Amino acid sequence: MKKIRLFTPGPCAVPEEVLVEMARPFEHHRTPWFKDLMGQCQEKLKQVLQTGNEVVIITGSGTAVAEGAIIGCNPPGSKMLTIEGGKFGQRWGEIAQQFGIDVVRHEIEWGTPPTAEMVAEHLKSDPAITTVMVVHSETSTATACDLEAIGKVCRDAGTLLIADCITSAGALPLRPDEWGVDVAITGAQKALMIPPGLGFASVSPRAWQIIENNKDQHSYYLSYIKAYKKGLGHDTPFTPAHVLIRGLNKALDILLEEGMENVWRRVAAMAEATRKAGEAIGLKVFSRRPSDSVTALCCPEGLAVADIRAGLKERFGIQSAGGQEHLKGKIFRIGHMGYIDEMDTVLVIAALEQVLHKLGHKFELGAGVSAAQRVFAERMR
Amino acid sequence: MKKIRLFTPGPCAVPEEVLVEMARPFEHHRTPWFKDLMGQCQEKLKQVLQTGNEVVIITGSGTAVAEGAIIGCNPPGSKMLTIEGGKFGQRWGEIAQQFGIDVVRHEIEWGTPPTAEMVAEHLKSDPAITTVMVVHSETSTATACDLEAIGKVCRDAGTLLIADCITSAGALPLRPDEWGVDVAITGAQKALMIPPGLGFASVSPRAWQIIENNKDQHSYYLSYIKAYKKGLGHDTPFTPAHVLIRGLNKALDILLEEGMENVWRRVAAMAEATRKAGEAIGLKVFSRRPSDSVTALCCPEGLAVADIRAGLKERFGIQSAGGQEHLKGKIFRIGHMGYIDEMDTVLVIAALEQVLHKLGHKFELGAGVSAAQRVFAERMR
Repeated sequence: MKKIRLFTPGPCAVPEEVLVEMARPFEHHRTPWFKDLMGQCQEKLKQVLQTGNEVVIITGSGTAVAEGAIIGCNPPGSKMLTIEGGKFGQRWGEIAQQFGIDVVRHEIEWGTPPTAEMVAEHLKSDPAITTVMVVHSETSTATACDLEAIGKVCRDAGTLLIADCITSAGALPLRPDEWGVDVAITGAQKALMIPPGLGFASVSPRAWQIIENNKDQHSYYLSYIKAYKKGLGHDTPFTPAHVLIRGLNKALDILLEEGMENVWRRVAAMAEATRKAGEAIGLKVFSRRPSDSVTALCCPEGLAVADIRAGLKERFGIQSAGGQEHLKGKIFRIGHMGYIDEMDTVLVIAALEQVLHKLGHKFELGAGVSAAQRVFAERMR
Repeated sequence: MKKIRLFTPGPCAVPEEVLVEMARPFEHHRTPWFKDLMGQCQEKLKQVLQTGNEVVIITGSGTAVAEGAIIGCNPPGSKMLTIEGGKFGQRWGEIAQQFGIDVVRHEIEWGTPPTAEMVAEHLKSDPAITTVMVVHSETSTATACDLEAIGKVCRDAGTLLIADCITSAGALPLRPDEWGVDVAITGAQKALMIPPGLGFASVSPRAWQIIENNKDQHSYYLSYIKAYKKGLGHDTPFTPAHVLIRGLNKALDILLEEGMENVWRRVAAMAEATRKAGEAIGLKVFSRRPSDSVTALCCPEGLAVADIRAGLKERFGIQSAGGQEHLKGKIFRIGHMGYIDEMDTVLVIAALEQVLHKLGHKFELGAGVSAAQRVFAERMR
């Protein structure tokens, strides 16, 4: 018996119903069937992303949709601020730089979040800044920021805010409209519970205006303006990965049936259970402001991340993530997104205990699971 | 009973086995499983595309992969020639223009192919041209060019050749290495028989050199160089639509089991059968040099394309394509790519007879099917 158990922070486990939906015979995409499917997905995406803004669906990865947002929202004369506390924050700064956008790249210690104070200080000292981009949940360090507070600062300053919500949307509380997030981007293979291949961006009226007036977008495929606006909610400018969109429709149903507040509560409980379990068995939580969508645990002294991850995978089919860049070998990450519930979380903690025990790490067997159980009993009643 | 029958020139019918393969539980993409899958696909793609060149796999549509080729192969100082005889030829010229590439856009009558003579004339009169881009099979007009002859002209002149093989690769004879095609691009949802979402480019050593030395590629996601070369054959720089790649692996097996020469022969026979059938029932073939991957038939006087297509769809579940741009209402198109064999072609012809008959078009019922039968008896023995 060999089970596959995805606890990576994307791709995440996908409901069997979604996979079966994707295997059904399909039609062409210039048909009433697809139009209806797109309309349904548009409405459901708005509910899941808690926004009244239109949501663009593109075929590509999270990077593709981020690139589209960066080039669209920064017409000539723009100045963008990125706050970079991890691999993805860095990537967005690099992309801006590569496109010749005037960009202020503020690096912060990995594992710490961008803050409203940092943003406010930049906007105060440099009024030329027109656009701010932050990562809501930095997957590489499992760190979340207070996006609501950052949004308030940007709104007060009249600055456009792009938020990378790739590992927050559908997992952490997110209210782009209330918070003043102009463009919230996300991907398919995270909390939206479908296989990789689609990216999403909710775009505020203010952002649409900037994007539409931007004649200098160095892309055709990723240009949101000419390309995507016309067909919003019923069509796509280029052939879409429509089998994935069909899976999306089913996955959104599953999320909405649970209700977003309930999803957020469940994800938060699973994350807290994992953190408490980690501490109970002697594993330090890496982040100073942990995200609830993924937990990064520090490797105990004397053990190797590679051995822990291999043990999880070989014995129990559990796929986890390691650290990236300078965090390689220092942390490993367990996701709480996708088709994972409380008992799956207990399972991964129990498996981690078995692996650590076998590797000679000293702790009381069962302590992690007990800590998790207490969290669930407390929070999910 | 309501069957879905895709005769559109993409998305095309996908073997059930491919859909089932895609519904299997999947792993993360940074794993030995995925590495092995990519290695297998790389080798099989080379066989299907009949090339020794490395093949890049990106998540996106045909337009995405074309955009990557255009910006990669045209460093500052380049001059590109596009010969545009249809919607897709036009799009590649537009993309080049949008990126500020110095481009000579040669428009030709829709339904006629670019020729070696045209290319030779341009290269002779304008030696500054460094790159030529042609469409091997122009889907919008169902017209194929003599790519081998064009390749010879480019090779003799030392000019880089990009060929849009989106509706030729896997359907029409194609030998990029012999013919001197530096970059052959194609998509998933055509003759490669998987749902949309992936694009492919085979890249010659000469093209790699130009792309690698091109520091001015206005893209991150679609930049073949930094991004894709490192991991060729085992990895992708951004999260790939790996469920589609898994389907691809199965679809390539099915194509290779039949053998490319046999696939080409079957497709050619189906196209000829459709053309002969069309003529037998009073429908003119639109193209002056028809492609074998899709057939465009002219709408008979007094009938409406919309009625023909609606009849095919409503009565028999057959999805066909109409004309695009100024050909709208003038032609309709029947594809020969994907999971379609001779008897499926007989079926679509018989259905077309039923629909035309009901719409009052005068012809001898059965004449189309008989003409097709004769072609198959002759060519497929």
